[in-house]
Amino acid sequence: MTKWIDDFGAEDDVIVSSRVRLARNIEDIPFPVALVKEKSQGIFTQVQEAISEGFTFTSLEKTSEMDRKVLVEKHLISPNLIKDYENSAIVLNEDESISIMINEEDHIRIQSLLPGFQLDQAYKIADEMDDKLEQKIKYAFDEKIGYLTSCPTNVGTGMRASVMAHLPALTMTRYISKVLQAANQIGLAVRGLYGEGTEVVGNMFQISNQMTLGRSEREIIGNLKDVMTQIIQKERDARATLLANNKIRLEDKIYRSFGILYNARILSFQECMKLISDIRLGVALDILKDIDSNKINRIMVMSQHAYVQKNAGKSLGIKDSDIKRATLVRRLLGNND
Amino acid sequence: MTKWIDDFGAEDDVIVSSRVRLARNIEDIPFPVALVKEKSQGIFTQVQEAISEGFTFTSLEKTSEMDRKVLVEKHLISPNLIKDYENSAIVLNEDESISIMINEEDHIRIQSLLPGFQLDQAYKIADEMDDKLEQKIKYAFDEKIGYLTSCPTNVGTGMRASVMAHLPALTMTRYISKVLQAANQIGLAVRGLYGEGTEVVGNMFQISNQMTLGRSEREIIGNLKDVMTQIIQKERDARATLLANNKIRLEDKIYRSFGILYNARILSFQECMKLISDIRLGVALDILKDIDSNKINRIMVMSQHAYVQKNAGKSLGIKDSDIKRATLVRRLLGNND
Repeated sequence: MTKWIDDFGAEDDVIVSSRVRLARNIEDIPFPVALVKEKSQGIFTQVQEAISEGFTFTSLEKTSEMDRKVLVEKHLISPNLIKDYENSAIVLNEDESISIMINEEDHIRIQSLLPGFQLDQAYKIADEMDDKLEQKIKYAFDEKIGYLTSCPTNVGTGMRASVMAHLPALTMTRYISKVLQAANQIGLAVRGLYGEGTEVVGNMFQISNQMTLGRSEREIIGNLKDVMTQIIQKERDARATLLANNKIRLEDKIYRSFGILYNARILSFQECMKLISDIRLGVALDILKDIDSNKINRIMVMSQHAYVQKNAGKSLGIKDSDIKRATLVRRLLGNND
Repeated sequence: MTKWIDDFGAEDDVIVSSRVRLARNIEDIPFPVALVKEKSQGIFTQVQEAISEGFTFTSLEKTSEMDRKVLVEKHLISPNLIKDYENSAIVLNEDESISIMINEEDHIRIQSLLPGFQLDQAYKIADEMDDKLEQKIKYAFDEKIGYLTSCPTNVGTGMRASVMAHLPALTMTRYISKVLQAANQIGLAVRGLYGEGTEVVGNMFQISNQMTLGRSEREIIGNLKDVMTQIIQKERDARATLLANNKIRLEDKIYRSFGILYNARILSFQECMKLISDIRLGVALDILKDIDSNKINRIMVMSQHAYVQKNAGKSLGIKDSDIKRATLVRRLLGNND
């Protein structure tokens, strides 16, 4: 079970998940980029000693490449963490709502990931985890500027709060660029499915704070919440407009996508995400019944490259991967033909 | 019940229907093009007196425009007959395997239309009907050249034999133009869904004899049968090639078309025919189960413009017609969502 995938959250017609991550480093140890292997082992040990029961601790070196990629696809670790997997590790709680990356860009990155729009709760969880670690670990901290981090853009709170927002109606009505521009101007970053430097697929936008310095965590989260509340409303308005202006056309689009997803024998990831976006919209608008947002989350996660291969139990070329994806999606939708 | 739609026939994986029509005119009456209304009434009466029970006799003047078009869509009359509907009539037997058009281009056109590849049987039925009429009606006939007809291309036997062939694999593999060219060179005409001057839609080709003079009916039919037997084999070979070379790709295409047809809320006739073509191929190749060629015939006929309106009980604009068509097709496929 992965909480953000399998559970429900507020406003999950628009917000798929909420995430807060805190970047921390240990005093007197070089940042990971300059770290030798023995020292990185020392960090594993310090974290392991600081946290209590209920967590699993996995050295990425001991996992397969496929499993590492699956962790990225579940958004539990960043693509960055697996670049230097020999020195990194991941700590997870049972429902995977807390993940601690060790030796990503920083020694410690605490992440809390929840379904729907739950930024306050995500912050609370990350903050408590942070306090727990701080009881045993001495963080690199400056009285004046706050937590020290490998990249200057994280200095201060070391916090990034983000939501994964599904904005198909703003995209269809072409308001999306205006909305995202406005978000940018007030200091928010808009990114793709796997965060920085990744593409937007299936109308999924990761929206997060840019500033980490000069404001408190509460202020940063409050600001993101305010903006997102407006964006959620704008997306809902755009959906209402689409329904009011051409309901049957929207229904046609959604049902066709469902029909293809339910029947296709070959399915690329890009097409799959495009179709899933329509299905998710159809579920949110109560056009499609008998499917819930959890099922859609599962399909979205499990139709990714590494997950498809993990399911097949072997690495696959593109053609075979597209065939396996189609089969997997059919099964998940209940089509056993 | 319409026999060619609702019954099965030989080789109906490729040949949808077989048709034989005989053009006849009554001695000493001008051809329909030069006929005044009272005279055309006289022809109705003569035919009516010549035929026995089991036939319904309908003056097209007394039908609605919609019903006339539905008769065309069921291939029971030609588009030509309804151009001058005030002077024309249609005689049908119970299973609509025999239709007699009155005052189309000729006074009398006897048509026998059967499912699958049944040219001999269709000829037998038309010939018997012809004999029955000839007992009471004196045909315009010349000892040397045969039956006289309005258009010189029909003089002689007055016969046109045709099949409606579904040739998707020859189309996909791009052999179709070669095959049709060859058919043309040996004296066959290739036409669209509603015969002369109409478009090929959904990979449906009407193939018929061109020559009516200088050969016996048996020879003409024998020739068409020989050529069609070869074309059937070529289409089946092309299907086997597609299956052998890229089965999954073909399955994907067929299932996607099924998924769209089963789910769409807006469906143009052109798109519908394109999708039905894939479904028909899927059924022929046993890729799609639980559908038979009758059901596909029904969908093909009932998704045409006039039929959709007849079903809706009123005339419809294009947009509403596309919506009704989609609903009708879903229902026919068993989707009651």
